[in-house]
Amino acid sequence: MMMVRLAAAASLVALAGCSDPPRSWQAQDIDPANYQLTVIASGLNHPWGLAFLPDGAMLVTERNGAVRLIDGDGNLQDAAVTGGPDDVFAGGQGGLLDIVLAPDFETSGLVYISYSAGTASANHPALWRGRFDGQGFSGGETVFRAVPDRATEHHYGGRMVFLPDGSLVLTLGDGFAYRERAQHRDDHLGAIVRLTHGGAAPEDNPFHAGGGAAAYVYSYGHRNVQGLAFDPQTGVLWSHEHGPRGGDELNVIEPGVNYGWPVVSQGIDYTGARISPFETLPDFPEPVHVWTPSIAPSGLALHEGDLYVTALAGRALHRLELDDQGRVARETRLLTERGQRLRHVLSGPDGALWLLTDAPDGQVLRLTPAP
Amino acid sequence: MMMVRLAAAASLVALAGCSDPPRSWQAQDIDPANYQLTVIASGLNHPWGLAFLPDGAMLVTERNGAVRLIDGDGNLQDAAVTGGPDDVFAGGQGGLLDIVLAPDFETSGLVYISYSAGTASANHPALWRGRFDGQGFSGGETVFRAVPDRATEHHYGGRMVFLPDGSLVLTLGDGFAYRERAQHRDDHLGAIVRLTHGGAAPEDNPFHAGGGAAAYVYSYGHRNVQGLAFDPQTGVLWSHEHGPRGGDELNVIEPGVNYGWPVVSQGIDYTGARISPFETLPDFPEPVHVWTPSIAPSGLALHEGDLYVTALAGRALHRLELDDQGRVARETRLLTERGQRLRHVLSGPDGALWLLTDAPDGQVLRLTPAP
Repeated sequence: MMMVRLAAAASLVALAGCSDPPRSWQAQDIDPANYQLTVIASGLNHPWGLAFLPDGAMLVTERNGAVRLIDGDGNLQDAAVTGGPDDVFAGGQGGLLDIVLAPDFETSGLVYISYSAGTASANHPALWRGRFDGQGFSGGETVFRAVPDRATEHHYGGRMVFLPDGSLVLTLGDGFAYRERAQHRDDHLGAIVRLTHGGAAPEDNPFHAGGGAAAYVYSYGHRNVQGLAFDPQTGVLWSHEHGPRGGDELNVIEPGVNYGWPVVSQGIDYTGARISPFETLPDFPEPVHVWTPSIAPSGLALHEGDLYVTALAGRALHRLELDDQGRVARETRLLTERGQRLRHVLSGPDGALWLLTDAPDGQVLRLTPAP
Repeated sequence: MMMVRLAAAASLVALAGCSDPPRSWQAQDIDPANYQLTVIASGLNHPWGLAFLPDGAMLVTERNGAVRLIDGDGNLQDAAVTGGPDDVFAGGQGGLLDIVLAPDFETSGLVYISYSAGTASANHPALWRGRFDGQGFSGGETVFRAVPDRATEHHYGGRMVFLPDGSLVLTLGDGFAYRERAQHRDDHLGAIVRLTHGGAAPEDNPFHAGGGAAAYVYSYGHRNVQGLAFDPQTGVLWSHEHGPRGGDELNVIEPGVNYGWPVVSQGIDYTGARISPFETLPDFPEPVHVWTPSIAPSGLALHEGDLYVTALAGRALHRLELDDQGRVARETRLLTERGQRLRHVLSGPDGALWLLTDAPDGQVLRLTPAP
C-alpha cells in the first residue's frame, strides 16, 4: 500500500527530531511517482459533495443546484437527478453543498443534502432530505433552516457527518459580515449544529435547555467550517475551518465549546488589520494545527489512520499523520503538481481516496498507491 | 435622615422615566447643604484602609508603610502602631493597603492587612495578619503571597471582606504590564482570591482541583479591583474595578467567572489605542454599571441599601441607588465641591459614612445628614 510505504518514510523524518507540530510551509510534497490518479468524471459545475451508493454508483452535488449520478461503471449521467431541493440560492459560495446517505439508507433510501436557501438579500444554510430510488428523489423536505437570514453569499460551512448515535452534525459559517455573531449561541451564525435525523434538536444537545436556536447548537465561535470527520476508533470529531488571512484551523469538536472566533484567531483580516489582539486565550481551545498562510481547507477525511485535507487556495491534498496523542506528527502534500483547487476528499468503500476539484468543469478523481 | 430625604427626591426623578442605567456623566450632584462633613484626622500619608475597633478607636493604614491609631476620642496618635508587616514595598501604587478585623476579633485580636511586598523589580500583593492589643501588633505573619512577582508598581487591588462563612476575599490587580495574564487562572494577576482565615485555599474554591495558584482563585479577568462589599441581605458580593481610559466597572462577583479583561472592555488604552475590539461578548458578564470617562473607583461600601463609591480622578463620592432587581436606578454625587481625591468609604458602626482622602496629608472624614 502506498500509505504504508509513505508512513515508513515519515518515520525516518520523525526520528530526525521535531517536537512541535510542523506548520504547513514545512510540509513536504509527495512525489507523484508514488501514487496513481484517475479522472473518473469531468465537466461538473463546482462539485461540492459526493456520496457512495451501495451499488457502486455515486451521487455528486453541483454547487449551481443539480445533483448528478455517476453509475456503477463510472459513467456520469447527462441528466440531473430529479426531485432535489427546489429553493436553492446558488450564488457566491452558496448553492448545493454536501450530500450524505442516512445510516439506514439501504432500507430508508434517505439522502441528506446541505444547501443555501433563499435569495441574495435573505438566505440561510438549510438541510434537505429525500428518498432516492436509483433515478430520482421523492418526498423531499427541508428539515432544518439555520437562523437568521443573511444578506451575504459567503461562509455557509456545509459539511455533514452522522454520529454513531444516529444524530447528524452539520457545520455552518459566520456569513462573513456577521462574525461577532459567532460568539452568540442563540443563533446559528458561526455554529456547528447537531440534529436528529428529522432535523430537530436532540435533547442532549449542550444548550437544549436554552431553547430556540440555541437548542440546535453543538459548538460555536467558528468562522467557516468545511471539514468534518468522525473517528469511530477514538470517538474524536475532527473539523477544520477557514481562517481569515492565515489562521486556518484544525480542531477537535467537543459539545458546548466556544472555539473563539473572532475573539481569538491566528490570522489577520484581508485588509491586513488585526481582527483581535488575541491569538490564543486560556479559556478557548487552541487549534490542534494551524495553517498560516491559509490553504483554504475545504474537505476532510479520515483514511487509514491519517487525516486528509483538501485545499482550495493551497491547491493540494494535505496528509496529516497523527501521533498516539492525537497531535499532528507530520504533514505532507499530494497533488501539488496538478495545481487544482480541491473541494473535497473521501475515503471510498473501495479503499481509495476520492477527490472533487473546484472548477466550472470540475472533476471526480480517484487516488490510489502506485501499482 | 439625610438618606431618606434624598431617596424621596430620587423617586420623583425616577418617575420622570429613565429605563437604562444612568451613566456617570448624568449623575446629579447633591447640594452640600444636605449633609454635614467633619474632618476627624489629618496629616496621614495616603491613608488607604480603615478598621473600626470595638472600643470606638480606629486603625488606619498609610500607604508608605505605617499603621496609625485614632483613639476613641478621635485623636490621631503620633506614634505608628508597632509590629506590622516588615517587608512592605512602598512605591507607586504599592505599600500598605487595606485593613480589616477578623470576624472573631473580640476574642482573637486578629487584624488582617493587605500590602505589597518585595522590591521595585520583584514584588507581589500579600496578606498579613497579627494580634492587636490596643497598642501594637504581635505574632505577625504573612499568610498569603500572590504569584508571580512583578517588576511594576501598579495595579495591586487590595480590598478585603470576610464572607459569612469565615473565608476572606481579597482583590488583586493585573500588575499593569501583565494584562494578558488576567485571562489565566493559574496565577494571581488580575484575580480575586478567596482564602481561609489562615491564608490557605478553601476546598470549595472554584478551581481548587486545579491546585497551585489556581486553587486560590475566586474570579479572574479583572484589571485592578479596589472596591468590594458584601450584602448580607441579598448574598451579593459587589466589586468595582478601574478600567483603562474609560470603562470603570461595577460587577457582581460570582465564583469561577471570567470577567473578561482585557478581552472585553468598554475603555481604551491610555495611548488611545483599542485594547480589544470587543466591548462585550456573550460569554462574559456585562458590568452592572460602567463609568466612562473613568472616575477611578477606589473604595466601595453598602450603606442603608445604597452603594457608595469613592473616586480618585472623579474627586467625588458616588451614591448608586439600586432597584429591586439589583440594577443601578440612579446615581448621584456628593462632595464634588471639595475637589479631593477619595480613597475609601465605609459604613461606620455609628451609622455615619467614613471616608479617606488620597493625599500626602490625607484625611479621615465623617459624613452625616445635615442636622
